[in-house]
Amino acid sequence: MSTPAQIGVTGLAVMGRNLARNFARNGYAVALHNRTPARTRELVEEFGHEGTFAPTESAEDFVAALERPRRLVIMVKAGDPTDAVIREFAPLLEQGDVIIDGGNAHFADTRRRERELREQGIHFVGTGISGGEEGALHGPSIMPGGSAESYESLGPMLESIAAKAADGAPCVTHVGPDGAGHFVKMVHNGIEYADMQLIGEAYQLLRDVGGYPPDEIAGIFRAWNTGRLDSYLIEITAEVLSHVDSATGRPFVDVVADQAEQKGTGRWTVQLALELGVPVSGIAEAVFTRSLSGHTALRRASQDLDGPKPQALGPGEAATFADRVEQALYASKIVSYTQGFHEIAAGSAEYDWNVDLGAVAAIWRGGCIIRAAFLDRIRAAYDAQPDLPSLLADDEFAAEIAEAQDDWRAVLVTATEQGVPTPGFAAALAYYDALRAERLPAALTQGQRDYFGAHTYHRTDAEGTFHTLWAGDRTEVQS
Amino acid sequence: MSTPAQIGVTGLAVMGRNLARNFARNGYAVALHNRTPARTRELVEEFGHEGTFAPTESAEDFVAALERPRRLVIMVKAGDPTDAVIREFAPLLEQGDVIIDGGNAHFADTRRRERELREQGIHFVGTGISGGEEGALHGPSIMPGGSAESYESLGPMLESIAAKAADGAPCVTHVGPDGAGHFVKMVHNGIEYADMQLIGEAYQLLRDVGGYPPDEIAGIFRAWNTGRLDSYLIEITAEVLSHVDSATGRPFVDVVADQAEQKGTGRWTVQLALELGVPVSGIAEAVFTRSLSGHTALRRASQDLDGPKPQALGPGEAATFADRVEQALYASKIVSYTQGFHEIAAGSAEYDWNVDLGAVAAIWRGGCIIRAAFLDRIRAAYDAQPDLPSLLADDEFAAEIAEAQDDWRAVLVTATEQGVPTPGFAAALAYYDALRAERLPAALTQGQRDYFGAHTYHRTDAEGTFHTLWAGDRTEVQS
Repeated sequence: MSTPAQIGVTGLAVMGRNLARNFARNGYAVALHNRTPARTRELVEEFGHEGTFAPTESAEDFVAALERPRRLVIMVKAGDPTDAVIREFAPLLEQGDVIIDGGNAHFADTRRRERELREQGIHFVGTGISGGEEGALHGPSIMPGGSAESYESLGPMLESIAAKAADGAPCVTHVGPDGAGHFVKMVHNGIEYADMQLIGEAYQLLRDVGGYPPDEIAGIFRAWNTGRLDSYLIEITAEVLSHVDSATGRPFVDVVADQAEQKGTGRWTVQLALELGVPVSGIAEAVFTRSLSGHTALRRASQDLDGPKPQALGPGEAATFADRVEQALYASKIVSYTQGFHEIAAGSAEYDWNVDLGAVAAIWRGGCIIRAAFLDRIRAAYDAQPDLPSLLADDEFAAEIAEAQDDWRAVLVTATEQGVPTPGFAAALAYYDALRAERLPAALTQGQRDYFGAHTYHRTDAEGTFHTLWAGDRTEVQS
Repeated sequence: MSTPAQIGVTGLAVMGRNLARNFARNGYAVALHNRTPARTRELVEEFGHEGTFAPTESAEDFVAALERPRRLVIMVKAGDPTDAVIREFAPLLEQGDVIIDGGNAHFADTRRRERELREQGIHFVGTGISGGEEGALHGPSIMPGGSAESYESLGPMLESIAAKAADGAPCVTHVGPDGAGHFVKMVHNGIEYADMQLIGEAYQLLRDVGGYPPDEIAGIFRAWNTGRLDSYLIEITAEVLSHVDSATGRPFVDVVADQAEQKGTGRWTVQLALELGVPVSGIAEAVFTRSLSGHTALRRASQDLDGPKPQALGPGEAATFADRVEQALYASKIVSYTQGFHEIAAGSAEYDWNVDLGAVAAIWRGGCIIRAAFLDRIRAAYDAQPDLPSLLADDEFAAEIAEAQDDWRAVLVTATEQGVPTPGFAAALAYYDALRAERLPAALTQGQRDYFGAHTYHRTDAEGTFHTLWAGDRTEVQS
């Protein structure tokens, strides 16, 4: 027998393979296992020189190859396959061993699995991993949940394989107990949906109203990427927009079918937010707009609906308009993150996770899809005031939105008049205006509910719960 | 023993009591049962003269009082209490008996219960009932699911107690198998949320921009109620807005706390729509806005956020503005119903229910909270073209939106500039503009997803699934 491996990876599709290589490249001895052993052999043949691998074929051999307490990373499809692998390995493990699930599990499944395995004395660490294939290999953003105890031994290993932020800090932290890691990863993806939606709206406005062709829009995004919008998604937007389809010589973006797909984490984010009573309208519009784009029959049936056709501005006005779009995009982005962090705070309160929001912002600064300079600002805001009720309550963000809002409103006015759909920008502004409103029509809603359903209401000037006898003499009774 | 009862009601809180009275008033002999028998006795003492009641105390006596096949209506709290009552009664029933659940059950629970009881040969009819206490007594809109066979004997009874539409048709139909009735009731409530949100936005605009006091706004709603917006919700809006608080002498709407509450069916509607991939942005904004209104700490922390304060128009302009708001409200309402009916169509397809959308519109014309002249138009649209891909594909609705849209856009421009939150109007317009758009930025989204996650894309000019080697030489490969 060789030296026991410090960590094992089972499930060697591209994410698992790259994660195993990442551990090995960082000096860890890595036990390998895959349902079909051919994949294990391929990995060793192709990348065996990168570090110390211990390929195994049976579950027993895999477990035997690990030093104790064992650390075993599952990289299989979320859902039933994860449960199947747990059922296979758990009986072979001992008190104090650690199972790390690096898949995109729903956090409720993670909570259930953690509870079940805890009864056997096994630590279950549901772990969000963002950054795709490249991130898994070169350094992802890692969001582990599970027990604090498990993080003691696991943390240093994750820190060594994680992405590093600009200040050198590894993009990993112990997010919180049980499902906290997968919850935060879910919201990360929801925010990613919103970011992409807002970028899409900015693109469409620059195209239809600004009158710019895709390669010039790429240049605008490249310029934005040198400022406060500096981020991976803005960077790759420029790459995609400047790409020319070699088959047709046309802009790539014009030959791609405009039907966006989705895998489910964005939808989960909104469904959970509804459960928690957190308004995440920006993320919801992003999810809905992707769905809408795929309803081809509906879209075809709607092509003759009446409405304005956008008119492109002249070159001078277009440049000013582009600057305004940057302001609208930035302000809407602040709102998206405000909503996303609100959801994390609400989840943390609901499940007693005690999540450090500043730490979450910090580990998203590198490795993940939404990595951005912006996140360091969010980290700073929460570090300065950990109980910040909302990102909008941070003086700097409030000041930036205050400065952006004339342009934000102007862009929305243009979009509304010209018929360019901007659900994300509009939802963000409505959220902002609703939050700052002194009175909302919710009072009327409560009156209506009391009228038709005797649902009662509160008063602004007295404690208690009241009902008006609408069908009677309309006196008020306390209930 | 007296004559056996034709129907029984267990659970005699206000909804159950009024439903039992409604059956009795329509000539049916009604067996009564309640967990605490005092309530049963009270009903007979107070309303015994209205018809034939057979009060019972034990479950056995209740079941014995019913003619066969037995028809037994459960009117208890949705969730565990419903299951508890089913567990109590099911063992006492026989092949062919019918349990009707008139509570606000989640349709997935109804599907489960229907399946379980079907194995025992018992029909389970999950039934949406809308109209509140008054509706239950004088005629609700009734949405039964369950087997077609159960409807044969149950239908005539439901038809006699249901509300009647203006053309005399009873507001009940066999919606479809298993959970179809509760599903349609859920979407009914989601649409109700959206209607109330849109009315709230119209009110706020008339108040803040129109400069009208609540009693004058009540007059405007009263006027609208004589036109195409003729509906119960518009009618009661006028009632609520014209009501003066006797304690303070102030408009009632100004003394009610502006924190809207909700019971869950709106949230379910959005969660299910996400599951089914149906954009219901208007309903989602209504649910989110209710949540937002209740986040008092967040709202308090946002009071100093910068933004315009609405400026009231002069009297001449205000009247024109009010007309425009009516157009915006009507156009947004068409979109809400388009989204809601899309969800019903998608649910029907997913669960093989074969729901008749025209029949659904028809039974909402009376009795329920969203009853409106408008629904007769929807019925007509689906009757004329049962496979209508969308309400917006109906020529008349399309023409009305075409006519309304200049004003709709103008109102949104004003709201955007003046800082009045109009998430519902804005979401509706964005949906409309997205549907009619020839190209959506979804193509860019697909390009980004392929870039960071190798998620592949389709092309507009070729079949198949493609991937660009973004990190390589950027050639395209078919996958």
